Amino acid sequence: MSPSSRRATSHDVARLAGVSQSTVSRALRGLGGMSPETRQRVEQAARQLAYVPFEAGRSLVTRATRRVGVVAGDLTNPFFPDLVEPMRAELEHRGYRTVLIPDSVESPADVQVMTDGSLDGVILTTARMGSRLPHQLADAGVPFVFTNREIHGFPADACVADNRLGAVATANLLVDLGHRAVGAILGPSDTSNGREREAGLLEGLNARGLYLDPARVRRGEFDFDTGYRASLDLLANTDRTSAIVCSNDVVALGACNAVMKAGLAVGRDMTIVGFDNIRMAGWPVFGLTTVGCDLTKLAAESVRLLMLRIQDPTRSHTRVVLDVNVVERASHGTASVN
Amino acid sequence: MSPSSRRATSHDVARLAGVSQSTVSRALRGLGGMSPETRQRVEQAARQLAYVPFEAGRSLVTRATRRVGVVAGDLTNPFFPDLVEPMRAELEHRGYRTVLIPDSVESPADVQVMTDGSLDGVILTTARMGSRLPHQLADAGVPFVFTNREIHGFPADACVADNRLGAVATANLLVDLGHRAVGAILGPSDTSNGREREAGLLEGLNARGLYLDPARVRRGEFDFDTGYRASLDLLANTDRTSAIVCSNDVVALGACNAVMKAGLAVGRDMTIVGFDNIRMAGWPVFGLTTVGCDLTKLAAESVRLLMLRIQDPTRSHTRVVLDVNVVERASHGTASVN
Repeated sequence: MSPSSRRATSHDVARLAGVSQSTVSRALRGLGGMSPETRQRVEQAARQLAYVPFEAGRSLVTRATRRVGVVAGDLTNPFFPDLVEPMRAELEHRGYRTVLIPDSVESPADVQVMTDGSLDGVILTTARMGSRLPHQLADAGVPFVFTNREIHGFPADACVADNRLGAVATANLLVDLGHRAVGAILGPSDTSNGREREAGLLEGLNARGLYLDPARVRRGEFDFDTGYRASLDLLANTDRTSAIVCSNDVVALGACNAVMKAGLAVGRDMTIVGFDNIRMAGWPVFGLTTVGCDLTKLAAESVRLLMLRIQDPTRSHTRVVLDVNVVERASHGTASVN
Repeated sequence: MSPSSRRATSHDVARLAGVSQSTVSRALRGLGGMSPETRQRVEQAARQLAYVPFEAGRSLVTRATRRVGVVAGDLTNPFFPDLVEPMRAELEHRGYRTVLIPDSVESPADVQVMTDGSLDGVILTTARMGSRLPHQLADAGVPFVFTNREIHGFPADACVADNRLGAVATANLLVDLGHRAVGAILGPSDTSNGREREAGLLEGLNARGLYLDPARVRRGEFDFDTGYRASLDLLANTDRTSAIVCSNDVVALGACNAVMKAGLAVGRDMTIVGFDNIRMAGWPVFGLTTVGCDLTKLAAESVRLLMLRIQDPTRSHTRVVLDVNVVERASHGTASVN
């Protein structure tokens, strides 16, 4: 791409100056951690490329843009709107605008837009164990919080549901209803919520003398298609499976559709349990039994943590774990005698 | 609010200079339409308030930010993700970032964020007859297109579905199935798609010798709750209504839930027809019969029109009307003999 066809980026400046992007960001924001020579080289490269960081849009007094980035997955997955909308409302209430930054496995979020100085902070809802994003944000000195998912051991603020306890409660519900042949559609193993929900389910079943037969286990992304396909597969290839525990509600909605498609009645013929309690779980047509986490509270707490972090970048990190509870609706029932 | 607590806005500059916000925007972008004295007054006010327009973030060569704003309604309403996601993908494909700007009756979109020079153009999906936004964008010289809804007679590019023809087709389907006592949940009368779908339904029924009994008509926003509540109301307060024509699919999903809640079977006991063919309309649990408009094409055409407008602000306006077709699934059936 010729220089005239697009704006120079901090990446271009980094390449020309022979330093990392985070050094460019730090140098141009007047932060330390480099030699005077390096700083000079960055400034010269920026001038040469006519690079204008979004920093220029910041208030000269407060250095604030009053914009917060929210990194979220595919919005056609209803979990994300249900989490993003209360975040947007809470941020607006506090005088901040929300910039939505899409992120998916196929099309990862663009870190550039988060480190160019156009945002005061970032809320990350899609972290995976191998994500580079948290490292890049930390390196560039951009305040952020983990929400919904986190990276265990990474020094940052986090606000998450009590995934383990919720999954234990699901296991207890199923065992109490007489289910023995329990199936599961687990989440990605590189996500904290996927792992914790899996561990809680195993722990809860084991404590009651049951185990999860690997033949009844499927695994995939937290989306509708995963739930739909995995359920059709479980129905076709396993006998007597009487309940399907899903990694989240969107997966469970896919499972409900598959069970109905197969001519079975959810609740009576097959028990399905989700996690999150998104709005659609409460629609009469689904009546999904699920583990409820208050998504509005999750959003508000995350914004609160980010505000504290922006005000004081040096404060110690806080991890907020929100209570969960089983919301019993119509998608569960007693196991028929096998 | 004290000056030190927030960034000065173009609104502040306009007030101090005694001119309109659009004059501020035009003056600082070097556009004409004002006296040299006015321009000078604006520049002086901007300096005095340390106002830095986002213009500063533009490429010095191309004057482009490579960002496009998409004004959309509540994302928890699944119509908007289904329209916004293909727009985002198409914009990304063309090297543009998408800035999502929320807009609702209760919390109207902030025009400031669209006229501060941080965006190359705007796609408006939520226009209402009385909207000030299109006027403000035109005044500020910001390229934009109407998508999904438009303001008839307003000189701008537009990309919309053939709402009238789609509604006529729905009327024909119902009459062919023997429905006489047709109910309807109409959209807001200050929206072009609400009006066109209403007019098409009336036209189609009248052409077949039927009319719409006002007792069987309800009206409301394009959302789930409208469909849910209006359907419960129609079920409770009208006799023999055998079909409900909905203003869009999200309203129809609410109607389906209400009918199921009332213990009736959608399709057999009550025919429900939507409009748009969002993804969820195809979920087996709904199997919604609807008027299909290709939302991916609507998104792509809208982006294409905006690109042309950005390249040549003086070109004549184009109105693209996309074909629609009835997608027959499971939510319709023959009218039982009344």
